[in-house]
Amino acid sequence: MKDKVYNLIILGLGPAGITAGIYAARYKLDTIAIGSQRGGMVSWSHLIDNVPGFGEISGEDLADKFFKHLRKYNNCTIVETTVNTIQSLNNRILVSTKEGEIIQGESLILALGTDKKRAGIKGEAEFLGRGVSYCTICDGIFYKDKKVVIIGSGDSAVKGALYLSDIAEKVYVIIRREIFSCKEKCDITSLSKKNNVKILNNSVVDEILGNKKVEKIIVETSTGSDVLKQEIDVDGIFIEIGTIPQSILLKGLGINLDENGFIKVDNECRTNINNIFAAGDITVGFSSLKQIVVACAMGAIAATSAKKFLA
Amino acid sequence: MKDKVYNLIILGLGPAGITAGIYAARYKLDTIAIGSQRGGMVSWSHLIDNVPGFGEISGEDLADKFFKHLRKYNNCTIVETTVNTIQSLNNRILVSTKEGEIIQGESLILALGTDKKRAGIKGEAEFLGRGVSYCTICDGIFYKDKKVVIIGSGDSAVKGALYLSDIAEKVYVIIRREIFSCKEKCDITSLSKKNNVKILNNSVVDEILGNKKVEKIIVETSTGSDVLKQEIDVDGIFIEIGTIPQSILLKGLGINLDENGFIKVDNECRTNINNIFAAGDITVGFSSLKQIVVACAMGAIAATSAKKFLA
Repeated sequence: MKDKVYNLIILGLGPAGITAGIYAARYKLDTIAIGSQRGGMVSWSHLIDNVPGFGEISGEDLADKFFKHLRKYNNCTIVETTVNTIQSLNNRILVSTKEGEIIQGESLILALGTDKKRAGIKGEAEFLGRGVSYCTICDGIFYKDKKVVIIGSGDSAVKGALYLSDIAEKVYVIIRREIFSCKEKCDITSLSKKNNVKILNNSVVDEILGNKKVEKIIVETSTGSDVLKQEIDVDGIFIEIGTIPQSILLKGLGINLDENGFIKVDNECRTNINNIFAAGDITVGFSSLKQIVVACAMGAIAATSAKKFLA
Repeated sequence: MKDKVYNLIILGLGPAGITAGIYAARYKLDTIAIGSQRGGMVSWSHLIDNVPGFGEISGEDLADKFFKHLRKYNNCTIVETTVNTIQSLNNRILVSTKEGEIIQGESLILALGTDKKRAGIKGEAEFLGRGVSYCTICDGIFYKDKKVVIIGSGDSAVKGALYLSDIAEKVYVIIRREIFSCKEKCDITSLSKKNNVKILNNSVVDEILGNKKVEKIIVETSTGSDVLKQEIDVDGIFIEIGTIPQSILLKGLGINLDENGFIKVDNECRTNINNIFAAGDITVGFSSLKQIVVACAMGAIAATSAKKFLA
């Protein structure tokens, strides 16, 4: 029996992968899209308000709408699983899944997204899942009327703090510098109006302490000349300090990455390998803005480039 | 009284302008968005199926959802009118409307879009949205197992014909000259292999006829000495004879345009003028794919660049 070979394999079911799938299906490519998380990081967001046409929508609902849209095409097979390895052999792409299945394709779109950065705080790894979390949406709900801290000053941290402030009794926001790096100023304004939020700037968490679970943190605050040290009782710690690309699977493919592991692409979402394309947060070289609409655009562009390659 | 000066003026209310407005509002920029057509060219599409999360939606409905989303922000004023002139004076942008109002801004996003070239056929305007379309990708899918005609001989027309040949029962391609002007020869080769495609060269469509929707066309074919006239039954007519950027208003601003009048931008949607940005179909230099999701992404990117400039 001859093995099935897809025209296109898409890895990732976030905005980039889903949009690539929609375009590929509409281009009549025999496509398979593989991912472990419907909607990718979108599903982790509490409320999303910047995808045009949806107004305010929960991340879960938007992820669901994206997924349902892709599912309506017969020529895009969707497999919800984890990828173990990716190989390229004689211009054929081979992807193995955790179930041991080998999937073959003539071309590949990498839309694997990013993972959350670790802070490297003493106690962080020890208390992961026992008070330490990288996802306010996934875990915030477990801290109803409790005390939490969120570390970070960017868009994700500020949105996370807003979300937590509606659930927790008290939210400490710890930022390394004087001011937030968050771009969406409306979110900072909203945060400043919350009575149960305390912002500690020029501060870092030195250590996470507890017995079976997180009980307190030690915070160091610089006053210019002095460094103040204080203990704060908290039940949960959310770390939102940025993302790292999911590029561990790419070793051996010969794809050009930047020094941080992001895949270098051109304006048409092409990598240096002629049958491999990339889209979304895992890339560098397109626009520096990492947003859902940009990832969607890149998915459409990558699928179009794959179609051109296959023709 | 001191004149009001907006942080940002956005020209165009298509996907690029709307998304730029959403992002600018969320960045707390005092913004005004001006355009004559809610949703821009989106509103012309019969049905749209490639904006992720919406599934199949009418162009009118999607345009409406885009517009409503923008309207919910207090700090983005929307003015539905036509722009008469755009000037730049001492780093201040001055826009005059057809009502004679002068609007001042510190920065400008040009999202004026393009217009599809009209063929000027009798019946063309009358049957727009009822069988006449300017976008094969948007509307082709709705002609499954039907008869369609595509007018044009360039890249878009040939690509459009190829796309339609996988969907429709029969595709007539009508070209004015003896041969195609399409640059990508492989597409012409592919097209010639299609059993359901009939190319009528040295031909023009004389008239579009129907009752409530398109039913047939009258085609004139020159044989050298003679002109043959025939009626062909068709359900849809695609006109792909090129686009023209809405760049007539840009004269005197000193913006770098390409030879066809498109605005040159970089990956961050910046033009050569430091307080003028551009997004969507009016641009060149970003990705070559002109689609709604790409225009949305560019709007978000242009607003982010404007915010950086203003900071």
